[in-house]
Amino acid sequence: MQYPNNIKKCYTKLSVSHSNRGMNLENALNQSNEYYLKKDKALIYKKPTPIGVVDVAYKNHKKVIEKAYFKEQSTLDYNGLYRGKYIEFDAKETLNKTAFPLSNIHEHQTKQIRDVIKHGGIVFLIIRMNNLTYLLTGESYIDYIDTNERKSISYKYIEEKAHLIKEGYQPQLDYLKTVDEIYFKGE
Amino acid sequence: MQYPNNIKKCYTKLSVSHSNRGMNLENALNQSNEYYLKKDKALIYKKPTPIGVVDVAYKNHKKVIEKAYFKEQSTLDYNGLYRGKYIEFDAKETLNKTAFPLSNIHEHQTKQIRDVIKHGGIVFLIIRMNNLTYLLTGESYIDYIDTNERKSISYKYIEEKAHLIKEGYQPQLDYLKTVDEIYFKGE
Repeated sequence: MQYPNNIKKCYTKLSVSHSNRGMNLENALNQSNEYYLKKDKALIYKKPTPIGVVDVAYKNHKKVIEKAYFKEQSTLDYNGLYRGKYIEFDAKETLNKTAFPLSNIHEHQTKQIRDVIKHGGIVFLIIRMNNLTYLLTGESYIDYIDTNERKSISYKYIEEKAHLIKEGYQPQLDYLKTVDEIYFKGE
Repeated sequence: MQYPNNIKKCYTKLSVSHSNRGMNLENALNQSNEYYLKKDKALIYKKPTPIGVVDVAYKNHKKVIEKAYFKEQSTLDYNGLYRGKYIEFDAKETLNKTAFPLSNIHEHQTKQIRDVIKHGGIVFLIIRMNNLTYLLTGESYIDYIDTNERKSISYKYIEEKAHLIKEGYQPQLDYLKTVDEIYFKGE
């Protein structure tokens, strides 16, 4: 059994599926969300990864999980409140340069995207590809998969339909600026 | 080490703080949310309890958590989308018959309630007390704690200001009916 010195780091690493590929997309989004929160601009959080607990023990009056496994999220990973609107999104990365493989998006996630659109929320994917970060609206994503039978979204479609997100220092990914341009035009 | 036959049951039990007091509030809410989801009425989920993972192992190519601890949620436990609006709430129970102890609501939860109001979302507490279930709006809660220095909310205040939630079979707690009456009057 290993006890890493930095528990938080270990936790972060575990919950990232495609880390160490240049920018760490999840860290960049978490930092941006903390920035938005601090500046009182939006309330957006990453949902904790659900786990199934098998064994638990009490040590010094504290519950310690001794056996558990990771489960799948029913929704997209991030949600919250911005300018009075419900917002939900997921973040995806690929090393593929010419196309974004649709195997990255699970069926229940596609259903959730359709549902959020239907119920009047803002929903999108943040896609990192070719060292750039794009916002693809739920509507453009659904439109693509409903009219194409391919197993990936071509980079050309992403370049045409998705919106480039500005990268910086604070916030690292100013995706709400992109949200403003798409969903709050002229307000 | 024990391996319970029913993992799901074990998991549910662990995440409930005040179970076995007549109606299990969390189960009733989860059942109601599943009902709303199935009826395509709302998208509301309980957030998974966040954990800090300390040790992880690979067994048969699967990640198994071997040591972890429970952490506190930054937000309220439930959130989602209803009739185009952002909705967030928490569920609280007390055996106390005359007053609801404010020690049940942590400081960061009170801050979150203020923040959701400020950003234009719907936020409330579902309080189970004296075998009844009430919806107390975030606004009434904040109003109470800002104008009173007591360490609890009197049951009288809850009876006066909170809204009784109808209990039934499907859904067990029809709290969205109460939300309609409060937030969507005349629509």
